[in-house]
Amino acid sequence: MNRLKEKILQSIGKKRWAIAEGYIPPDSTGEGPEFVSHETACILNAGGSDARISIMVFFKDREPAGPYRIAVPAQRTLHLRFNDLTDPEPIPLGTDYASVIESDVPVVVQHTRLDSRQAELGLLSTIAYGSDQ
Amino acid sequence: MNRLKEKILQSIGKKRWAIAEGYIPPDSTGEGPEFVSHETACILNAGGSDARISIMVFFKDREPAGPYRIAVPAQRTLHLRFNDLTDPEPIPLGTDYASVIESDVPVVVQHTRLDSRQAELGLLSTIAYGSDQ
Amino acid sequence: MNRLKEKILQSIGKKRWAIAEGYIPPDSTGEGPEFVSHETACILNAGGSDARISIMVFFKDREPAGPYRIAVPAQRTLHLRFNDLTDPEPIPLGTDYASVIESDVPVVVQHTRLDSRQAELGLLSTIAYGSDQ
Amino acid sequence: MNRLKEKILQSIGKKRWAIAEGYIPPDSTGEGPEFVSHETACILNAGGSDARISIMVFFKDREPAGPYRIAVPAQRTLHLRFNDLTDPEPIPLGTDYASVIESDVPVVVQHTRLDSRQAELGLLSTIAYGSDQ
Repeated sequence: MNRLKEKILQSIGKKRWAIAEGYIPPDSTGEGPEFVSHETACILNAGGSDARISIMVFFKDREPAGPYRIAVPAQRTLHLRFNDLTDPEPIPLGTDYASVIESDVPVVVQHTRLDSRQAELGLLSTIAYGSDQ
Repeated sequence: MNRLKEKILQSIGKKRWAIAEGYIPPDSTGEGPEFVSHETACILNAGGSDARISIMVFFKDREPAGPYRIAVPAQRTLHLRFNDLTDPEPIPLGTDYASVIESDVPVVVQHTRLDSRQAELGLLSTIAYGSDQ
Repeated sequence: MNRLKEKILQSIGKKRWAIAEGYIPPDSTGEGPEFVSHETACILNAGGSDARISIMVFFKDREPAGPYRIAVPAQRTLHLRFNDLTDPEPIPLGTDYASVIESDVPVVVQHTRLDSRQAELGLLSTIAYGSDQ
Repeated sequence: MNRLKEKILQSIGKKRWAIAEGYIPPDSTGEGPEFVSHETACILNAGGSDARISIMVFFKDREPAGPYRIAVPAQRTLHLRFNDLTDPEPIPLGTDYASVIESDVPVVVQHTRLDSRQAELGLLSTIAYGSDQ
């Protein structure tokens, strides 16, 4: 039992991830922060060491922004809203972007958008692209 | 013909999976259990041996919950609603989480959410992250 | 130029795929077949040889159905609606299922659902799980 | 710090990608180009060399179209709408298709559709299928 629990709490994932899609809808409808249109990188750090993570954001016609630095403690998950990034600069709304996420320990990354520009929300999600290099 | 059928019923998949996104919408609209907002781990056990599965659930700011223990018989699929997990504890609604799914035989895991907080449902789905370790 | 075109038309993909999620919504709204609630296995055969494909469908509490046999010609795509399968038996509506797709040449499989039970459609899609064995 | 930034700006991805699903909804509702129903191949070129990309489009019952030739500069992303392709020929609306995307340097490809045929939009997205051959 303890051995099983230990095994499940082993780290899982990769150290480099890419999300080629990115777009924060500029408008929202609905009440409260959970209905604000947003883009999320859901990061799972199932292992026993804290993860130090750097994110670079790429655009169509300007230099990349970043690195944005975040931490995900051991055995925790962080659902990071790109809307909340401010240092070194906020992500512009209504603009195509993409991101590369680099961690010093293995993590798993999933990409989700909630679009509430119209009265009824739209949702999308996909596993990100994980790389061994 | 029989040889083909046997081959198709061979096991497929991996023994460890992670779903970095998790959020059970706290509200629902619509009639009947199929329109209750829910999150599902769809698990396929295509092989000839029953699968014993343990799930750990990770949060932003507390210790992981679990293991939750479930079984998927040989050559069966289980679309497990996280809403239905109660032992050792229910998954809180409206809370970010993530999960690691461990099986003793190869399975395939896909993650789906139906969000019926508003009158018209939102849907998302993605293959989970499968690992050989 | 010709060499590039030849390379692009090389086969791509794997010979075994699994889709762990499956559910054909039993109701629909909207006009015409494109708004009928449906589940699709989008199959791409980019190579130079026709693909002979067999599909097994798995359920929660009964024996698997199939094999369903279909063909995808060389350099063609088939967006197969599970709703349209009839031989050896139709897929029941409103029922959880999963599928394993076996091809004699490499193909790529993507899973999509259009849910029109309510007035505004819901959409989900994911790459299926591809296997080398 | 500089070393970290350099590492993040290394290329990531694969040189061949396939998207088995493709369908440009023939109708739209809503105001402005961002609400026109569309299908997008989001391409991230995180590396230091420009990417020369060729796309072949496959159909159910006719010869493939293409190659369509596009470029994605170093350290840039392009969210390519299939609706915008015109040379050698436009992609027909309301028609099932699939695509193979070939790059001379590693890139990451994600597939997204916005369907605004009805008043409330539908969204889907998935990582494409990446191949080493």
